Amino acid sequence: MNDAEIIERWRANSEPWTRAVREGRIGSRLLATDAAVVEAVLARKPARVLDIGCGEGWLARALAAQGIEVLGVDAVADLVEQARRAGGGRFEVFSHEALAEGVLDERFDVCVCNFSLLGEASVDRLLAKMPDLLTAGGALIVQTLHPPTVDAAQPYRDGWREGSWCGIDADFQAPAPWYFRTVESWVRLFVDSGLRIESLREPMHPRTFVPLSLILVGERT
Amino acid sequence: MNDAEIIERWRANSEPWTRAVREGRIGSRLLATDAAVVEAVLARKPARVLDIGCGEGWLARALAAQGIEVLGVDAVADLVEQARRAGGGRFEVFSHEALAEGVLDERFDVCVCNFSLLGEASVDRLLAKMPDLLTAGGALIVQTLHPPTVDAAQPYRDGWREGSWCGIDADFQAPAPWYFRTVESWVRLFVDSGLRIESLREPMHPRTFVPLSLILVGERT
Repeated sequence: MNDAEIIERWRANSEPWTRAVREGRIGSRLLATDAAVVEAVLARKPARVLDIGCGEGWLARALAAQGIEVLGVDAVADLVEQARRAGGGRFEVFSHEALAEGVLDERFDVCVCNFSLLGEASVDRLLAKMPDLLTAGGALIVQTLHPPTVDAAQPYRDGWREGSWCGIDADFQAPAPWYFRTVESWVRLFVDSGLRIESLREPMHPRTFVPLSLILVGERT
Repeated sequence: MNDAEIIERWRANSEPWTRAVREGRIGSRLLATDAAVVEAVLARKPARVLDIGCGEGWLARALAAQGIEVLGVDAVADLVEQARRAGGGRFEVFSHEALAEGVLDERFDVCVCNFSLLGEASVDRLLAKMPDLLTAGGALIVQTLHPPTVDAAQPYRDGWREGSWCGIDADFQAPAPWYFRTVESWVRLFVDSGLRIESLREPMHPRTFVPLSLILVGERT
């Protein structure tokens, strides 16, 4: 399990994934996490947003519909192609590594990563680059699985985990692995990358009050 | 269940609690949380520390043994009396409310609350006062039960909960209630009180990797 394998696996799943998102097959997204990330971005009142790991583009479209100028980037060309066809923003094929190496010479009021920081070194390097991608007072917003809740049976420590399509009914290939980080590690990654924690949110299932995700908002210092 | 009842219940339990701490009967403390809070305080290299809710005084003594000048305060007079007898620092009977009202005209490099922020309004008011109790660059360090892990069967939202002596073998009276806060709420409380999150730690059971507590370190901004 490594950073490169993540991209390979998502390439193989780009078509069923696009359908699953567009047909509303992911319960936690409908219940809480889609609205939560949109709300977190809009709360910053940004003029320009970079959607990193935009996938088929739903979030970019939702933000563009609010009058925001959005650039969506993803390492998987098929997903970017799907996003372009649906419109609503600029879309480019850029990996986390390419962003970390400075492929983009632009700054944004918000960089948002919605369940798209899945790797180890690629994510560390992307975060380290964040101050160069943000305007003064700009913010990074990351939504990720809620670390203590996602699988409480596993040891609570950073490390690679097997992926799963659990809870999504669609015709997938093998899922991508992902690098698990504790809440402690997420906060450290932000602080070490020059981002001050402005808020941390825990979107919940509206009836069971089980946390469905973690959203970190970090301001460029 | 309210802030005042917390103090009443701890008054009734001051003697068995003192024995339980001094006889090392609280497994999670021995395994991880005692060392974690001491380490978090020492990492700030403070000259002067305020131990808020010091209880029978073990933490004040541990810090004083490192050459730090410590003032321990607690709302329960019997616990302060136990702390004075054991020595190792100054000890005073001050409630969170008294601190919030400005009873102390001193500043500290670290204010530490080790499992001692148990109330609702009393805690909100104490935190709001924190900038007046800290030196420039000073920090508040709070250790509390790990919110998502402490009782995953309960709805994950702020509110009063019944206390429990679970895991501590001693001759206690009825336990104190406490006001549960999510991680999101803890972070908001710090940020709203003018404290920048410097780190968030999740001390773990050294073998099972279950998080045993949450430590928040907030710097005065």
